[in-house]
Formats: sequence, C-alpha cells, structure tokens
Amino acid sequence: MKFVCSQSDLNSNLSFVSRAVPSRPTHPILANVLVVADAQKKRVSLTAFDLSLGIESSFSADVTEEGKITLPAKLLNDIVSRLSEGEITIVAEEVEEDETLLVLLKSVSGQFQVRAMKADEFPPLPTIEDGESIELPIVILTEGLKGALFAASSDETKQVLTGVHLTGTQDSLEFAATDGHRLSVVQTTLQPSTDDDEPGDTTEMPNLEGFSLTIPARALRELERMIGGRPDTEAIALQVDDAQVVFELGQQRLTVRKLDGAYPNYQMLIPKNFSRTISLERKRLLTSLERVAVLADQKNNLVKCTFDSEEGQVSLSVETQDLGSAKESMPAEITGDSGEIAFNVKYLMDGLKALPAKDIQIQLNEGNQPVIFSPLGGLKMTYLVMPVQIVK
Amino acid sequence: MKFVCSQSDLNSNLSFVSRAVPSRPTHPILANVLVVADAQKKRVSLTAFDLSLGIESSFSADVTEEGKITLPAKLLNDIVSRLSEGEITIVAEEVEEDETLLVLLKSVSGQFQVRAMKADEFPPLPTIEDGESIELPIVILTEGLKGALFAASSDETKQVLTGVHLTGTQDSLEFAATDGHRLSVVQTTLQPSTDDDEPGDTTEMPNLEGFSLTIPARALRELERMIGGRPDTEAIALQVDDAQVVFELGQQRLTVRKLDGAYPNYQMLIPKNFSRTISLERKRLLTSLERVAVLADQKNNLVKCTFDSEEGQVSLSVETQDLGSAKESMPAEITGDSGEIAFNVKYLMDGLKALPAKDIQIQLNEGNQPVIFSPLGGLKMTYLVMPVQIVK
Repeated sequence: MKFVCSQSDLNSNLSFVSRAVPSRPTHPILANVLVVADAQKKRVSLTAFDLSLGIESSFSADVTEEGKITLPAKLLNDIVSRLSEGEITIVAEEVEEDETLLVLLKSVSGQFQVRAMKADEFPPLPTIEDGESIELPIVILTEGLKGALFAASSDETKQVLTGVHLTGTQDSLEFAATDGHRLSVVQTTLQPSTDDDEPGDTTEMPNLEGFSLTIPARALRELERMIGGRPDTEAIALQVDDAQVVFELGQQRLTVRKLDGAYPNYQMLIPKNFSRTISLERKRLLTSLERVAVLADQKNNLVKCTFDSEEGQVSLSVETQDLGSAKESMPAEITGDSGEIAFNVKYLMDGLKALPAKDIQIQLNEGNQPVIFSPLGGLKMTYLVMPVQIVK
Repeated sequence: MKFVCSQSDLNSNLSFVSRAVPSRPTHPILANVLVVADAQKKRVSLTAFDLSLGIESSFSADVTEEGKITLPAKLLNDIVSRLSEGEITIVAEEVEEDETLLVLLKSVSGQFQVRAMKADEFPPLPTIEDGESIELPIVILTEGLKGALFAASSDETKQVLTGVHLTGTQDSLEFAATDGHRLSVVQTTLQPSTDDDEPGDTTEMPNLEGFSLTIPARALRELERMIGGRPDTEAIALQVDDAQVVFELGQQRLTVRKLDGAYPNYQMLIPKNFSRTISLERKRLLTSLERVAVLADQKNNLVKCTFDSEEGQVSLSVETQDLGSAKESMPAEITGDSGEIAFNVKYLMDGLKALPAKDIQIQLNEGNQPVIFSPLGGLKMTYLVMPVQIVK
C-alpha cells in the first residue's frame, strides 16, 4: 500500500471516524482504524467499528499501490494532528524476518514508523444489500435530535431507553426519548427535499408509513456531528433492515445496530386535558432556574414553582437548611387556579434548553400528574416531566 | 451592613479573591470570603486567606450601613456570576431567635438569602507596618515569572523548591526555580519606572542590593493573574519583612508567607565552559518535539537528540519496542564535534515554550553533564536540563 494525501484530509477524516473506536476495546484490532487505498478510484477510506457503531469516511489521494491495513487509531490521530499542513506519504512495509507490519508516514519535517495489524482481522461493517434507501432532509434530523436526544437514558442497563425511538407516518417523522423520569417527543413534518444534486427527487417526499425503530443515542450523537454545519436542504440517505440502520451523506457512512425490544407506548403517558395553562418567556424561566439551581444543587435538586393567576406571576424558590434560600419571580399568563408544584431542577433546565421557541406553554393538572412543556409556535414538541411531591 | 453595588464589580472582585480560598479548608471560616463595607470611603473590600496566601480587593459601592461579615465563597461566586448585569443590594440581617446570621442579596430578578458567619472569626491578613515599599515595574515581574515559574517543583514535600527564588543586585533582579531535574534562571534589568501616577518616582530605580527571598509558586501564579493585562510600565508595590511578602497594585493586595530555608546555590550548577554550541530555531525544535513526544509518551518520555556538525543538522528520534519510531531533522549551526544526547522530552518542551526568542543556543559538554538552553538576543535566561544516559 502506498499513497500521498494532504494532512488536512487525513486529519479531519481520521478524527471523524475515530469517534467509533471503543475506549475499552474487547479485541485489540478494534482499537485500530482500517485504512483502504483504492488505486482505481484514487481514494483512501478509513473505518472504525465498535461492533455496534461503525463509521466510514473516504477522501481523495494519490494511490500508487493499493492495499489495506489497520493502524492504532489514537496514536495515528495524535501524530497526524500535530503534523504541519502539506503532503503526507503513507507506505506499508512488511519486515520479512519477524512478520512485523510497519507503516511509514513521511511528512516534510520527518518520518514516523508505526506498528500495524493485518486488515483481514478487522470485522467488516454490516451492509444492507436490498433495502430501499430513504432520502431524509437534514433539517428533519437536526430538529428531531436537538429536541429528543438529551432525554434518552445514559444508564446502559436500560436498553431501549438508551435510544431515540423514530416513528413515521405518511408525512411526518416523530422522535421520542425517555429515561423514565421525563419524556421528550418531537414531531417533524416531511417536506419535499430540494437537493440540487438529484433533480429527479426534488419534489418527492419519502413516505415513512409504518416506519418504527429505536437507534442508540450514542450513534445519534455522532450523526448530529456528521450533519452539523451542512445545509438544511441537503438530504441524508437512510437504509434500514432487521438489525441495522445505515446513514450515508457524501463520502461519510454511519452504521449502527438497532436497539431490540418494544419501545414504551409513550403517547399513553401524555394527558389529554389540563386544568391549568401557563404561558411565559422561555429564556427568562431558564436563567432564573440556573440561578436558583445553585442552591438546589446543594440539596436534592428540588425547585418549587408557585403560580399566582391573579398576579399573573410565576415564582421559583429553593430552601435549604444549611445554606440559605432563593426566590425569583417573573410575569406569566395563567389560566386556572393558583397553586404550587415542585420539580427536579435539572430535568426542567434540560427541557427548557431544547424547546425551540421564545415563549412556551406549561400545561398541568393537580399535584402528582405529569406536566407538559411545549413551544408556542414553531416546531411541534412535547416535553413531559413528572413533578416531585412537596413535603409540607 | 447594607450596600448597593454593580453585579460586574462584585463578580470580578469575588472571582479574583476567591483564588485564595483553600480547596480543603482546615477551618470552616476559611471557606468564606470576608466582606467589609466602609461607609466613609464608600467602598467594599473582599478578602480570602488560606493562612499562607491572602488576597484582598476593593471596589466602590453605595454603603448606607457599614459593617463586616463572612460568606461562603463558592456559593456566593456561583450565585453572583449567574446574576444579570445591574445593581445588587446586599444586606446583613440577624435573626434573633437562633442567632443565625443571614445575608440578603437582591437583584432585579429576585433574591437570595445566604447563611453567613461572623467576621470576628476570620483570621486577619498579615500586614507589614514599617517595611520600606519597593516600586517594581510590572514588566520585570512578567518576564521573570514567565521564564522561571514553570520550573518550580509541584511536590509539596520539596519545600523551598516549591517556590521561585528572587535575588536582587543594584540594577537587576534574578528569578530562579528548580525542581531538582531542571533549573531556570531569568535575569531582569531594573529600568526606571515611568508610572505617571507618582511623578516623583519616575526616574528613580529601586536598589535591590541584598534582596533575597523565596516565594511560593502558587502565590506567584495568582500574582501573574493580577498583573496580566496591565500596562508593562505600571509599577507594583512590594513590601517584605521577616515572614511575609505583600504585593499591592491599585485596589488589589496579595500577601504571602515566604518559604523558609536556604535556597540551593544554583549558580554552582551552571557550567562555565562548553565544548559544543548549537544554534537553531526555537519554534521548529518545539513543534518537532511535540510530534515525536507522541511516541515518547508511550515509554519513558525519552527523546534522543543527534547533532551532526558537518551536515549542520539536529535530529530528534524516539524508538519504542511496541508502537514504532519517529525521526525528525532540522538545520542548525553547530560548533564542536558531532554526537548524541538524550533528554526527558517534557523538560525540554517546558523550557522551549518559556524561552523568549526566535532563535536559541544550546551549550553542552560530554554525555552526562548539564545542558544549557538560552535565547539568542533579548532577555537573559538560562535553562539547565540534566541529560539522560543513553543505554546502548
């Protein structure tokens, strides 16, 4: 294997795929990145795979001798990121005597020899041969992930709850995530893709009727990175089979194993009727919460929320035995009776950060029933939080 | 106590003095910051003290009732930094029934009540009554600290070596620090202060003949922060007695206990004659070291430095059994025989980062003798590193 490429191409593609390298690999080869040089296409592709999430990316290079090999991802990353811009020559050499595989990296300033491993041992990324490919506008994914991803559970034992559940209808795609304490649901509307590259598809909308799957949050965080900074109008290709999901965008490919098991019927949890509605400015509520959270932090993260419908005012308060107390108030439009309710301040802040609107609506019933936060105008999003019982 | 001040004044002064709050206070009151409101001067001063390092700072405020009290530094910091800009009213209130001291913080958005402790228990900052005050141009401190501070030991058991040693002569101030493996010495020249605020002093130079003391590196790092961003021409007032050093700049005061014990006679360690001299570009050497360090990291941090006087070239190389090897070369002017020497790559990089020049000179003798790095032109600085024996 021998090729010449630019430091910036190698560096950016390497740091992109390296996100799929497991921090504690179950097999030494998984700590490596697979490098494949194709002389005909004049391209080099890099692949990393932790047996669930796989990322592949390719870039153009002057390939004079094709071949494939694997290299330790972290070491390679550390070296390449420190090289100055310019050409890098990469050559795989086999040392006959002890079958050691070495790869030579040559740059203007000097050279590195890195121990490699054979490509044969690297597990192949799953492919989907005969699945239909869906073209999904990036904006759909951006909105859905921003509004739902944060609510997924980070507790690996919680299985399906560590993912985001996607449900399609003819003209919408719904993203839902819950960790058992709060639930976030975003309903995106499928609009025609206006991708110029594929003139035939411009007015066609994907029909996602019956589409239903749960994707690990970890993979979706990488997907967020992959689509970040791309124009909203661009489309990403999505393929699904019984076990896998594959996202493809330009020269980048992300494959991930679906989460098995039935996702909870979350729609059932969302109350249909409410006795009270509060409308207020999202940012104002969030900054107040951030301040009173300083005291809530010291205790059980509890914030009390009092709403006075006559005064048209919402007050947040925290009281601790040892440190002191905090109280902030803000104007709000309130329908229904005055009252009070308590929340975990972290769950509240997470949701408020994700709600995509200037003003929001809070809908609630009595004491221990779920409370719903939603944006006033814009995207359709529902954030459900269970209140905490106030001990008198 | 009652006063009104701006959020930004309180916030910046609080985060400045908080650096002296110990992370593990030996007494609860040391986790607090002392707040003193002076109605006559219309100023509020804040003080934090860990019994070695003390920092005091004051700002103007509308003091309507004078008094003093102490408040938990971290909590106060967390609250004040999150308040929006504008006026803050601070009132100390005594709750009669259980002698609890409470301080009320009122801002436009709401109010906080924080548990306070009496000011009486707060240990007073040491003062120097009858010591002469020396006016030291800030530039002297900036240069001296930049070149020496990094070489002090971070091992608390090493006593005097955890500080920077200052030695004065009639027209110079020398900064030295060593951790036993490397030594950095900066010799600054005392130039007349041109501080406009004190017209009488402008042409007078402090005479530091016989001046000799060791100051804890931790305090000097805070001093660096205190003078950072100030004009070089400004002067800082310095007072010293048997036990303490006090730095004063505007409304900020930093006091620190000197380190006891004789500082090693470091001048003795610096060789007077050298058989070889290498001149080369500092940045080029540093970036090469950063790259080969990636491999050196994996082993014992050893880098081999080969100098070829005929070729006029210095090469850095690292070889590891398991991972591979690295080699970089760069042009250099070399007098004396060719040869090779090995260093701890970290010590080398630390020194190169601090050397204030485009080109540097390396002076050395045979294998195991100290190697000297110094800037070519500019400030007078000597960086000494002990080489590591090369095992053949």
